[in-house]
Amino acid sequence: MILGSTGSIGRQAIEVVRAHPDEFKIIALAARGNIDAMLAQLEEVKPDLACLVEPDAALALMRRSPSSVKVLSGTNGLAELCALDDADIILNAVVGSDGLAATLAALDAGKRVALANKESLVAAGELVNKKLMSSKGIIVPVDSEHNALWQCLAGEKMSEVEQLTLTASGGPFRGWTRAELEAVTPAQALDHPRWKMGPRVTIDSATLMNKGFEVIEAYHLFRLGLDKIKVMIHPQSIVHAMVEFIDGSIKAHLGPTDMRLPILHSFSWPDRLTGHIDRLDLAAIGALEFYDAPIGESHCLRMAYDAARRGQSYPTALNASDEVAVAAFLDGRIGFLEIGNIIDTVLERHKPFAIDSFAAFVEADTWAKREAELVIGS
Amino acid sequence: MILGSTGSIGRQAIEVVRAHPDEFKIIALAARGNIDAMLAQLEEVKPDLACLVEPDAALALMRRSPSSVKVLSGTNGLAELCALDDADIILNAVVGSDGLAATLAALDAGKRVALANKESLVAAGELVNKKLMSSKGIIVPVDSEHNALWQCLAGEKMSEVEQLTLTASGGPFRGWTRAELEAVTPAQALDHPRWKMGPRVTIDSATLMNKGFEVIEAYHLFRLGLDKIKVMIHPQSIVHAMVEFIDGSIKAHLGPTDMRLPILHSFSWPDRLTGHIDRLDLAAIGALEFYDAPIGESHCLRMAYDAARRGQSYPTALNASDEVAVAAFLDGRIGFLEIGNIIDTVLERHKPFAIDSFAAFVEADTWAKREAELVIGS
Repeated sequence: MILGSTGSIGRQAIEVVRAHPDEFKIIALAARGNIDAMLAQLEEVKPDLACLVEPDAALALMRRSPSSVKVLSGTNGLAELCALDDADIILNAVVGSDGLAATLAALDAGKRVALANKESLVAAGELVNKKLMSSKGIIVPVDSEHNALWQCLAGEKMSEVEQLTLTASGGPFRGWTRAELEAVTPAQALDHPRWKMGPRVTIDSATLMNKGFEVIEAYHLFRLGLDKIKVMIHPQSIVHAMVEFIDGSIKAHLGPTDMRLPILHSFSWPDRLTGHIDRLDLAAIGALEFYDAPIGESHCLRMAYDAARRGQSYPTALNASDEVAVAAFLDGRIGFLEIGNIIDTVLERHKPFAIDSFAAFVEADTWAKREAELVIGS
Repeated sequence: MILGSTGSIGRQAIEVVRAHPDEFKIIALAARGNIDAMLAQLEEVKPDLACLVEPDAALALMRRSPSSVKVLSGTNGLAELCALDDADIILNAVVGSDGLAATLAALDAGKRVALANKESLVAAGELVNKKLMSSKGIIVPVDSEHNALWQCLAGEKMSEVEQLTLTASGGPFRGWTRAELEAVTPAQALDHPRWKMGPRVTIDSATLMNKGFEVIEAYHLFRLGLDKIKVMIHPQSIVHAMVEFIDGSIKAHLGPTDMRLPILHSFSWPDRLTGHIDRLDLAAIGALEFYDAPIGESHCLRMAYDAARRGQSYPTALNASDEVAVAAFLDGRIGFLEIGNIIDTVLERHKPFAIDSFAAFVEADTWAKREAELVIGS
């Protein structure tokens, strides 16, 4: 089942399933509200069920879709899909808090969640981990860095891990001065050198906040201290992540910058299936470069480590205020460097509490988004 | 137990054990004939048993060693050590055919062989594999490339492996012209840019024959087709080996160029222990470069693939004639490029037979060495 099927990850997941018709069958598709895209996918994939989270869109879809497809609506619809007996693997590529609700529902139902929703671990990692402990569900990460770590850890013991390293391409502005960064336009920031991604992730990559979120995700996913999770700049984006062990051995995962690889792995794990992507040609790439990440200089990366260290609702507020600040930057309402300043102000004003329920997450999320808007407007 | 204790690998293995006194205890040391070095090691390590393969040296050692040490002699002594009940792990760093005899004896006794002897798999791979199948013994490779592959394959299925890649620094003569290579002196060839090794291995690295031997070893160790074993030039020698899987994922093993790392791993496997070596600082190294290996241009590498493909006694003859040719080059009797030509002539004249016993190995080994001397003398 593919939740978030009309987005970039969802569309690539459909491709992956299409390349392995004997191994996988999509029984349900879900998206936010893109009716036309969903109709085209229903035509192509022919699932038994579909869900659009926006109720009006779901109604319209119901009228226009083939009668063979049962159409659900709302986050209730998502939760219903997650609990389906026939579903073994739930790809959660839903954007935002609906994705968190879906993760919790799928874990409750004991499913394997192929996780591509950021909020689940970034903004509610403690809550999701509690759910993981109390359910039979399991999370296999789809994000290329975390999937790479997951692969490097196969056959290894967490107690023998010295350090996890997430690589970052460094974004389009590596080496720029503060003055240059102040003048960055949304168009410049959206021009990421390696990965084609949605606008928010692309801006988050440029600020390194995306890498900060990934640090928080790794922290919850692998349950290691933050001092054991490191970021390195690697402009070629060929090495996605590395694990250093206590004996000094390092295992790295290399692959083309193609999300179909981690998507396929999250589906096939613990096995592997033949991939239909271009193989990596290291000789053609020539050199892989590595630099220490400028954590001290990256406002956003530093705030992410801090938020993870402080725990409770800080990461939730970090994620929510970032979402608002990035949107304001894309709208031309604030400058590039103000993204970090706004988040900083919101976190300073934040009174933390435990994220021990979905309601608590919503409270922190809503508060931080409103607060960020206030800061931007002031 | 450390067989070949006075050599480079053996000495480093003693260091590794000394750094982990709670985990390991050396109960026996063995070497070829260096009495003084062995006496010093007996003083330091205080094993129960010692063996020198050369009978006269063993007699002398017996007279000069503490009475608490039982001294054995000859290959029979090596075999006796390998069968000791108290020995769990046998590091076989013996050079030459005595090492093969020790591998066979240790496997017969159901031991874990931490294998650093080339002959065992290069020159008698089929024989050793047959012994592996019929015994409870196991081989954990110590050679940095094969140990790296072993680590990358942890938690993975061989049926899902697409390709193994051994890296080669390329030696000191990468990019040299044929005319330049003709004039290479032993001193130039002995100046390896990355690893400090014995003279034969260093020359074999310069001709790429060493990498050819490693291809043959990987072929027997991991039982994959030769078309799935590849060599890449990687001048920094940081990535020791890579495994590509059917889905397009690649796992690489990185580490400092320090043999104590694979030695420790071969001892601690399937666990890991804290290493006492300098950690890898990728940012300090900066860039990792990769080039396709010039298999077509490397006479020795090509002959190694051919010998492995033809099987039977061809790899034995390859190894034996290389030993003689390299010695002749070091003695100034032949030029650098003649090493390959001499081996080629020996292999051309070779009438292959199955290496199904130690005696068959000795026959092929002896024939090829004699033949190589004949070719050199002619």
